[in-house]
Amino acid sequence: MKKSPEFLGALEAGGTKMVMAICDTDGNIISRKIIPTKSPDETLPEMISYYKSYDISALGIATFGPVDLNKNSSTYGNILMTPKTKWVNYPLLSTFQNSLHIPMLIDTDVNGSCLGEVTYGDSKGLTDVIYITIGTGIGAGIISGGNMIHGMMHPEAGHIPVTPRSADPGKCICPYHTNCLEGLASGPSIEKRWGLTADKLLDRDEVWELEADYISDALVSFIMTLSPQRIILGGGVMHVDALFPLIRTKVKEKLNGYIRSHELEDMDSYITPPSLKDDQGILGALRLAITALENATDKPQAPSGY
Amino acid sequence: MKKSPEFLGALEAGGTKMVMAICDTDGNIISRKIIPTKSPDETLPEMISYYKSYDISALGIATFGPVDLNKNSSTYGNILMTPKTKWVNYPLLSTFQNSLHIPMLIDTDVNGSCLGEVTYGDSKGLTDVIYITIGTGIGAGIISGGNMIHGMMHPEAGHIPVTPRSADPGKCICPYHTNCLEGLASGPSIEKRWGLTADKLLDRDEVWELEADYISDALVSFIMTLSPQRIILGGGVMHVDALFPLIRTKVKEKLNGYIRSHELEDMDSYITPPSLKDDQGILGALRLAITALENATDKPQAPSGY
Repeated sequence: MKKSPEFLGALEAGGTKMVMAICDTDGNIISRKIIPTKSPDETLPEMISYYKSYDISALGIATFGPVDLNKNSSTYGNILMTPKTKWVNYPLLSTFQNSLHIPMLIDTDVNGSCLGEVTYGDSKGLTDVIYITIGTGIGAGIISGGNMIHGMMHPEAGHIPVTPRSADPGKCICPYHTNCLEGLASGPSIEKRWGLTADKLLDRDEVWELEADYISDALVSFIMTLSPQRIILGGGVMHVDALFPLIRTKVKEKLNGYIRSHELEDMDSYITPPSLKDDQGILGALRLAITALENATDKPQAPSGY
Repeated sequence: MKKSPEFLGALEAGGTKMVMAICDTDGNIISRKIIPTKSPDETLPEMISYYKSYDISALGIATFGPVDLNKNSSTYGNILMTPKTKWVNYPLLSTFQNSLHIPMLIDTDVNGSCLGEVTYGDSKGLTDVIYITIGTGIGAGIISGGNMIHGMMHPEAGHIPVTPRSADPGKCICPYHTNCLEGLASGPSIEKRWGLTADKLLDRDEVWELEADYISDALVSFIMTLSPQRIILGGGVMHVDALFPLIRTKVKEKLNGYIRSHELEDMDSYITPPSLKDDQGILGALRLAITALENATDKPQAPSGY
């Protein structure tokens, strides 16, 4: 059967579930299937079988990390060290390649979500965007000058240091760091600090004041370092209504007029929820599939910039 | 007289001095002239006259900031708000363009220094490098994925928040922020805190322990956010011999094994002084001139990445 260029595979590989989709090149999702993330041996065959049944032309993978994104590395596309022990060093990309034999591209889940928003969402056309997910963990996908940041590995921006507050009744729960954002502001850190889950803390102002303090510290750091045109905040914790207004106010106070730009004049648009609801990840994976297909057919590649 | 493509102009525009050079495309400096930075009306004519005398083909400018780098802006190439009051809103780029009528490119002084190091220095070939200058102020030039970061303006990474230490006998001297790196770790902040200039504090271990603490906080933040392959530290404060070893040790301790990469295994190479002595800025400006010339003759432009 001839491969149809209209069918592209997208995978959002998460620690608890695998979201698979078949899409067309316009960003329409034709089919979607979600399965729990078990061991690779239990999970991969079902995914491969799903994609094979649609005879896809390319596959884009947005995965939990850390993952090796260095195309010159012998372990390119492998999961690296992770608390998900069965997936440590697992060759995710090459396992798909050895079964499907089609163009593929892999990136982090958060880079994927950022890519989805700038390709199909309200941030279409922007070149410098940060997507941060605040939930069980904290991670950031970063597009700078139109390109996803990789560097020596990929950003782990959830682990930047922030200043612990003296009024904080808890402490950083990160096993690696004494004062990182994830250890002080993730969902589990909130629960550990206050002894209750977030949904039972909604009327406690001090909980969200503190949470917004930590998050806004990090955003100020990202703004100074990356000068983004927009910051998108997703993840379970950001569903708490009180947070967006608090974070916007605190970021503005902490910048204190030092950075002047028209983007900062509209904070509601500058610090914003995802526009694609829960589809930013899978649509980012679709964009990776499209790029994989373009890379396989178009030459030459874009030259380096400077 | 026909313009010789061998003669390119480079300008490192600083708050106290203007470093001008005439170079060839291989990075050789043929002529150099340094004049004090006075008002634009006093300084510009002398610079224009210098470049005219060599009949240059293009000019690259690495300037103090903040500066408008948005090519679609009506104030592209203008200096923005700065304590140097005579230069506020000064149209630096267009003044040169209106006199010289040749291709030009402008960027920040620190982006220029970073560019010089990856073009002509030991970091040649690297795609993700941060250049930080720590002196009267603190600034960072960032190359990510082979491109200088601009975003909505340009990085102001010297102003990221860091955690004030309880043992610090001083406090943040930044007029905008209560706990930013520049306000806590610049040369003037050291002098204010201890009541002596750096050269009279060389044997005081606590001075450099604290200084390295603040700087390493910031480097950890940059590593988590940008995943650079190398960090170059320049500027007057970094001439203190004790600092490099202290900073490397503290960064490694604070990362605490969370990021694993071969780059981090050699900290002497990972956190390093500039390799071009004091020529990284002017050679970065030369690279800007070369790019300006290429942009004027080569079409099409590089496509956007994703």
